[in-house]
Amino acid sequence: MTIQQINSFAAGEWIAPGEGARNIASAVTGDIIASAGNNALDVQGMLDYARNVGGPALRALTFHDRAKMIKALALAISKNKQALYDLSFATGATQSDHMIDIDGGIGTMFVFASKGRREMPDGHVYLDGEVEQLSRHGTFMGQHICTPLQGVAVHINAFNFPVWGMLEKLAPTLLAGVPAIVKPATNSCYVTELAVKIMLDSGILPAGALQLVSGGLGDMLDRLTLQDVVSFTGSAQTALSLRSAPHILENSIRFVAEQDSLNASILGPDAAPGTPEFDLFVKEVQREMTTKAGQKCTAIRRMMVPENHVETVIEALSARLDKTQIGDPKLETTRMGALVSGGQKRDVLEKAAIIGQEAERVYGDPDNFTVDGADAEKGAFVPPMLFHCANPDSAERVHDTEAFGPVSTIMGYRDVNHAIELVNKGQGSLVASVITHDPAVAREVAMGAGAFHGRLYFNNRDSMKESTGHGSPLPHMVHGGPGRAGGGEEMGGVRGVKHYMQRTAIQGSPDILSAIGDKWVPGATETTNKAHPFTRTFHDLKIGDTLHTEPRVVTMEDIEHFAHFTGDTFYAHMDDAAAKRNPFFPGRVAHGYLLLSFAAGMFVEPNEGPVLANTGLDNLRFMKPIEAGETIKVRLTVKKKTPRNEEYGEVRWHVSLTDGEGELVAEYELLTMNAY
Amino acid sequence: MTIQQINSFAAGEWIAPGEGARNIASAVTGDIIASAGNNALDVQGMLDYARNVGGPALRALTFHDRAKMIKALALAISKNKQALYDLSFATGATQSDHMIDIDGGIGTMFVFASKGRREMPDGHVYLDGEVEQLSRHGTFMGQHICTPLQGVAVHINAFNFPVWGMLEKLAPTLLAGVPAIVKPATNSCYVTELAVKIMLDSGILPAGALQLVSGGLGDMLDRLTLQDVVSFTGSAQTALSLRSAPHILENSIRFVAEQDSLNASILGPDAAPGTPEFDLFVKEVQREMTTKAGQKCTAIRRMMVPENHVETVIEALSARLDKTQIGDPKLETTRMGALVSGGQKRDVLEKAAIIGQEAERVYGDPDNFTVDGADAEKGAFVPPMLFHCANPDSAERVHDTEAFGPVSTIMGYRDVNHAIELVNKGQGSLVASVITHDPAVAREVAMGAGAFHGRLYFNNRDSMKESTGHGSPLPHMVHGGPGRAGGGEEMGGVRGVKHYMQRTAIQGSPDILSAIGDKWVPGATETTNKAHPFTRTFHDLKIGDTLHTEPRVVTMEDIEHFAHFTGDTFYAHMDDAAAKRNPFFPGRVAHGYLLLSFAAGMFVEPNEGPVLANTGLDNLRFMKPIEAGETIKVRLTVKKKTPRNEEYGEVRWHVSLTDGEGELVAEYELLTMNAY
Repeated sequence: MTIQQINSFAAGEWIAPGEGARNIASAVTGDIIASAGNNALDVQGMLDYARNVGGPALRALTFHDRAKMIKALALAISKNKQALYDLSFATGATQSDHMIDIDGGIGTMFVFASKGRREMPDGHVYLDGEVEQLSRHGTFMGQHICTPLQGVAVHINAFNFPVWGMLEKLAPTLLAGVPAIVKPATNSCYVTELAVKIMLDSGILPAGALQLVSGGLGDMLDRLTLQDVVSFTGSAQTALSLRSAPHILENSIRFVAEQDSLNASILGPDAAPGTPEFDLFVKEVQREMTTKAGQKCTAIRRMMVPENHVETVIEALSARLDKTQIGDPKLETTRMGALVSGGQKRDVLEKAAIIGQEAERVYGDPDNFTVDGADAEKGAFVPPMLFHCANPDSAERVHDTEAFGPVSTIMGYRDVNHAIELVNKGQGSLVASVITHDPAVAREVAMGAGAFHGRLYFNNRDSMKESTGHGSPLPHMVHGGPGRAGGGEEMGGVRGVKHYMQRTAIQGSPDILSAIGDKWVPGATETTNKAHPFTRTFHDLKIGDTLHTEPRVVTMEDIEHFAHFTGDTFYAHMDDAAAKRNPFFPGRVAHGYLLLSFAAGMFVEPNEGPVLANTGLDNLRFMKPIEAGETIKVRLTVKKKTPRNEEYGEVRWHVSLTDGEGELVAEYELLTMNAY
Repeated sequence: MTIQQINSFAAGEWIAPGEGARNIASAVTGDIIASAGNNALDVQGMLDYARNVGGPALRALTFHDRAKMIKALALAISKNKQALYDLSFATGATQSDHMIDIDGGIGTMFVFASKGRREMPDGHVYLDGEVEQLSRHGTFMGQHICTPLQGVAVHINAFNFPVWGMLEKLAPTLLAGVPAIVKPATNSCYVTELAVKIMLDSGILPAGALQLVSGGLGDMLDRLTLQDVVSFTGSAQTALSLRSAPHILENSIRFVAEQDSLNASILGPDAAPGTPEFDLFVKEVQREMTTKAGQKCTAIRRMMVPENHVETVIEALSARLDKTQIGDPKLETTRMGALVSGGQKRDVLEKAAIIGQEAERVYGDPDNFTVDGADAEKGAFVPPMLFHCANPDSAERVHDTEAFGPVSTIMGYRDVNHAIELVNKGQGSLVASVITHDPAVAREVAMGAGAFHGRLYFNNRDSMKESTGHGSPLPHMVHGGPGRAGGGEEMGGVRGVKHYMQRTAIQGSPDILSAIGDKWVPGATETTNKAHPFTRTFHDLKIGDTLHTEPRVVTMEDIEHFAHFTGDTFYAHMDDAAAKRNPFFPGRVAHGYLLLSFAAGMFVEPNEGPVLANTGLDNLRFMKPIEAGETIKVRLTVKKKTPRNEEYGEVRWHVSLTDGEGELVAEYELLTMNAY
C-alpha cells in the first residue's frame, strides 16, 4: 500500500512533506495511509503572498463578483464530490456523514453566494445600518461602513469536518475580500488537501486567495498584525494556548474561537411518552449521538428529561441505539463508523470514565460490542454509550467533560426552571435544544438560557418534517457560543462576513457619505437632466439623478371620488367633525394611498423604456396630512443601484412629497427594475 | 483645608476609604483635596448583589422601561450639574471641558434613552435581523435574538472624563438590563462619586443596578464568569495586563478595551491655504490639542499635510496656539487648564521627549510659558507643543508614542496614497479625520484607511457649521478601534447595547418564534374574531389577530379609470402589446397602487374607533401581476405592537394580497397608530 504524501500550498507552489513528517492511519483499518507535515514552509512568504497578491486581487472585486466566485467554487467541488467521498471513508465517516461534511460544505458556499448577491451591494463598501442624523439641518451625518481587512485570515480547523470546516470559514472570508491560509487538523488533512486542489485547479480563485498548510503553522501566528484574523475550531486547551500568546494579545489580533461545548437537549414537560415530541426527542438524540460517531462540536452531550420520564427515555433510546449498526463505513448497512484515530478513541474512553464517576452507564459497553466488516481492535471503533446521572445538581464532571464521541448523559429535572439551571451548568454552549409544543415553555427557556447559548433549537410536531437537526449549524444562523464554547461566532449570514471586515463609523456631509457608500443620502447633490430619468438605462442612471415634478392640487372631489372608487371611506377622509376629533388631523384629509397614486401619476414616464416594473416600496412614512385645496409636488432621486441578473437591475429611488410650502408630506423609497 | 473622603458604594452601603487610602491632589494647586481607596470592600458580596438583586430587577423591566429610567437619570444629573462643574475644576478642566464631560455625558444618556424607545421593543427580547427562511414550506425558521447577560458589567474608566466616561458605558449597560460596578480612575474619582451619588439619591435605579469602587478592584476580575463583561478605557499596558489574566482567557470573558491611539488628521490635497478647509483644519487641530489639555483618547496626535503646505500650517497653527491662554481653569479667560496630576505632567514631558528624538519641536516650550492665575510649578501645567517630523516614513516613535497631553506632530505627504500609508502607521486608531471638499479623496481614504480606524471624520465647508468635532465620540456612532486602540467598540447606538447582551440564534416553528420574539411570524397561528380588529384598542389587540376580507374583482374599467384619474398611464397598464414585450407582465395589468388602494378599501373599518391613522408602510413587494377580471383578497394580521406615548401606540400589521388561486400578489407591513 502506498502512503500518500499530503502537500501544502504556499505562495503558489505545492510543497511536499519533509523529513519526519507525521504518519496518518486509516480510522477503519489502522493502516498508515498518508503522511503530512514538516514541509520547508516559508511562513513569512505565505503571509506576504496573501497580503500583497491575494488581498489586493480580492479587494478589487465587488461583493457580487466574490459571491459569483464562491458559487463557482461550490459547483467545482460539487462536480468532484465523488472523489471526496471515496477519500473520506478512511476518516471513519459513513456516506451519510459525508453528506454533512461535503454536501453540507457545498451548501454553505451556495448560501453565502446567494446572501452576497441578495444582501450585499455590487460594490466595495458594505453599509452597516442606516444613516444617523447627527445635525439639525442635515449637513453633517453618520453612517457605519464595513471594508475588508487588509491582511490574511488564518483558519485553524478541527479534524471532524475536513471539508465543511474549511468551507464554512472560507466562504465568508472570501466574500469579505480577504485571502485565507487554511490549516486543517492533520488526522483528516488528506480530504482537505483534495478539496483545496479541486478549488485551485478550477482556476476560479485569484492567486494568493487560498493557501494550505498540511502540518504545523510554525511561528505564523507570531507574525500577524491588526489586519489579520485567526479563526479557530478545536479544543479549549489549544484555543487557550494560542489566544494567550503575548503577540496576539498585545496587538489585539482578532481571534474567533469555537471550542468545547457541553450541548444539551431538553425534553419539554409537555412532551410525555405518546406525544409526537417524545418520539422526536428520542430520534434527535440518537442521531446526534451516532452521526460522525458523535464527533460533532454540536452533538448532544447532556439530556434533561422530566424526572418521571427518565426511565422511559432510556428504554426508548436504548432500543433505537440497538439498531445502530457499527462497522466499516463503506458498508451500506453501517449506521455508525469509527472515530478518527486510535488517539481519539483513547481520549473518548478516558472522558467516558470520568463521566462514569458521576453517572451510571446504562447503555453501551466499550469492551463488548459488534463491529461489522472491520477489525474492532485495529479500527478506532467505540459503541454509543448512554449515562444516567441521578444527582445532576451536585454533579460537576457531567457538566464540563466533553467526551468527543458517541457519549451522552441523561438527567431528570423537576420543572422548567430546574431544566434551565442544569442546561446552563455547561457554562456556555454552542447549542441547546428543546423539544416542546408549548410556546410558553420555549419562551421561558429562551429568557432563562438564551444568554448561555449561541443557538437554541426548538422542535415539535409542527416543524419536525422540515427541521434541520439540533446538530446542524446553518450558514444563515450564527454558530459559536459564550464561555466554554469559546466566545466566538461564525456564519450567521452577513454577520459572519463582518468578522473579516472592519466596521468604521463615517461622519461627514451628505456628499461625502454618498460618495463613500455608493448610495445617495438626503441632502447630497441632486443632478437634474433634461431627459426623464425613466428614459435612461440602468447603466446610464447615476446616483443623485433627480426629477422634480409639477405640482398638482388635491381637491375635495378627488378625495370623495377616491373614497367611493376604492371603498376606503375611513372617517378621517369623509367626516370633517370626526376627523377634527382625531389627534392627527386638522379635518378631512386626503387618503395616503391617494397621494401615493397621484405621485406615481406625476412622476411616471408612460412610454416603453428601460423601466420595466415597480417592484416594491420601502420605508413609507406620512408626515403631514393634506387637505382639499392643497398642492403636492414630487421629487424622485436615484438612491442606489443593484444588478439583479443578466438583463436588468434594481433601482432604489428616494421619493419626497412636499406641499405648497415645501414641507414634507411623505417620504419613501421606490423600487423599479431597469434594463441595462 | 479639609480632605474629602471619597466613598465606595457596595451592596447598598456607602463605604469610607480605609487606612492608607491614596491622597488626591488638585491639578491646579497641587494641594491634597481628597483621599480614596483601601476600603474594606467585600468584592464577592458586590458581585452577588449585582447578580442576585440588580440583574433580576433590571431584567424584569422592558427596554422601554429602562430607556425611561435612563432619561430620568439624565434629568437628575442635569439638575445637579452645577455641583459637578464646581468640583471638576480641581481636575484641571475648564468650563468648556466640563461641557464635554458633564453635559456630554448627560446628552449621551438622552440619546440612548431615545434610541431605546425608538429602536428597541417595549419587551424583553431584542430581535437582531430578520426572520431566516430555513425551510421550503415555512414550518421551520430562524431568528436571532439578544437577551441580557445574567451577570454584571465591570466598568474601568480613565481619569479624563469622570462623568462622560462612566455614563457612555452605563447607559448601554442599563438599557441592556445589566447591573454595573463602576471603577473610576482615582485621580478624578471624586467627580464620579458625586455623579453616582446624584443617581442613587434620585431613587430611580433599582437596588443593585449601580455600585461604585473608589480605589482598587481587589481580585474582582478573578471572580467573573461568562455572564460578566469588563469594559475598559485606559492605557494599552493596563489593558494588556488585565485581559491577559488566565481567568479572563480561560472563561472567554468579554473584555471590551479602548486604549492608546495615535489619531491623525489629514489636510486634503484640495485644501490649500485660502480655502475654507484650510482654516477649518487649523481650527480643529488647535481645538483637539488644547481641549482637556489634550487629555482625550481621540485627540489629534499626528497631522498629515501636503508637503508644500507644511510651513503654512505650522505658522497658522502657531498663531492660533499663541492665543490659547493657559491658566487656572476657573478663570473665564482661560482656554486651556492643567493636566490631571503631576504624574501625568511628568509622563507627557517624557513622551514629548521621545517624540523629540524624531521630530523638531516648532511650538511650545515646557520650560518657558505663561500660566494665568495659578502657580505653574505647583499645578500640572504644560504648554501646547507642536512637533514637525521631516522623515515620517522612517520615523517610528511619532507613530507609536501617545503623549497624553497637548502634543501633536505634523508631517508632510506626497499624495493621498502616502497620507494613507502614514495614517495607517498608527497601527489602529480610534479616529482619523480628513478635511477635504473632494468626495473622491474621501472615498480613497475610506477604502485605504477604513480597516485601520474605528471612525473616520470628514469635514469641509458644507458640514463645518454643524459638525461635531474630530474628537467627539457620539452615542450614535461606534467608539473604539482595532489594534493599538484595543480592538473594542463602545456605543454606536444599539450596537453598544449588544455588548451587554448575548446574541442567540433561535430555530423553530413560526408559533415558537412568535412567542419568543413577541412578533408574529408568517405561518404562525392566526386568530380571527367576530369584531373587526380596527374596532379593538391597542391593548386589546393581540399578536396574531387576523382579518380576512371578501374578494374583489379588478376590472379593465377599474384600470382605465385609475390610470386617467391619477395620471399613471404607464404602458404596462394601458397597452397590451407593449406590456407583453415586458419580461414581467403577461399583458395589461393593474397598477400596484390600485391594488394597494383597493386593499385599504377592503380591510378598512370606516367608523371612528381606536385606529387613529395610517402612518406608514414597509417592505412592500409586488410578487404577481393582476390582470383585468382577476380577484384579490386581503389578509391583515397584527404583527407587532409598540407603545409610542401616553395615548397611543404603533401597530404593525402584516398584509397579504392573494389572487383567486390563493397565490401571493403582494405583501407588506402597514403601520397604524392605535389608541390604548
